[in-house]
Amino acid sequence: MEVKYINPFLESFLNVISTMATIELSAGRPRIKQDEIALGDVSGLIGMISPQVKGSLSITFEKGLALKIMHNMLGECPDHINDEVTDMVGEITNMVCGGAKRILGEKGYQFEMATPMVVAGKEHHISHQAHGKKIILPFTSLNGKAFVEICFQENG
Amino acid sequence: MEVKYINPFLESFLNVISTMATIELSAGRPRIKQDEIALGDVSGLIGMISPQVKGSLSITFEKGLALKIMHNMLGECPDHINDEVTDMVGEITNMVCGGAKRILGEKGYQFEMATPMVVAGKEHHISHQAHGKKIILPFTSLNGKAFVEICFQENG
Repeated sequence: MEVKYINPFLESFLNVISTMATIELSAGRPRIKQDEIALGDVSGLIGMISPQVKGSLSITFEKGLALKIMHNMLGECPDHINDEVTDMVGEITNMVCGGAKRILGEKGYQFEMATPMVVAGKEHHISHQAHGKKIILPFTSLNGKAFVEICFQENG
Repeated sequence: MEVKYINPFLESFLNVISTMATIELSAGRPRIKQDEIALGDVSGLIGMISPQVKGSLSITFEKGLALKIMHNMLGECPDHINDEVTDMVGEITNMVCGGAKRILGEKGYQFEMATPMVVAGKEHHISHQAHGKKIILPFTSLNGKAFVEICFQENG
């Protein structure tokens, strides 16, 4: 998978978190996921389909960062990942994927998004099953880490 | 969401588990998910898109049932949910969704599937974010429970 497909997701994620939650995340170097496992406490997931490729995106948050985003976006201070937090993570996932879809669309790469799903559970991890390289984008903040993972395969 | 969309997923799941793992699951009554939370230890998730609707499917297994399926399908006896188990759950999710896609296609309802994702983590739960009724199909077996959840929304 080429960089031109990855950067729009990175840009879109930084932009959504900065705009919606006024949190500046520090982006680490994108890398190919091998044995690495990105553990988190709440994740948004979405499927993507284009005429050429299909794949999936996940955004995994550590609990502290998810709760901080919740606080900054909605003024609420839950002490655990409740339904409002999972809905917020679903909405962020939709916005990030929608932002990347717009950027890629302007470059001539169209794709359709399915509806997001959100997983909540202490220290879960996600395995993308598309037959392509799994790209992991790590982010850090004062309140915890986040990981964006993307994987596409060509339609066979 | 109408029964005609649900039954193909139910049939396909029972068929895949029976054929591939020689396990007969007992299907409970499909219901609309409200406050209910289906906890499990490993889940396969997939996004679906048609010209009319888009949505998502998840299949959540308790650990004991996932390991029993692994044993029956591949002869392996892991004591925890390792990469082989998550790959198997991804493959089952693909087969179940593919079976339902075929049945629905024969009835004139076409949809495209994204690639599956698998979540592993003790007692996680999944929240489908499509703006439609969430249908939950519960299954029991001697080795543990499974839940298939489906949610579609009309394209706006």
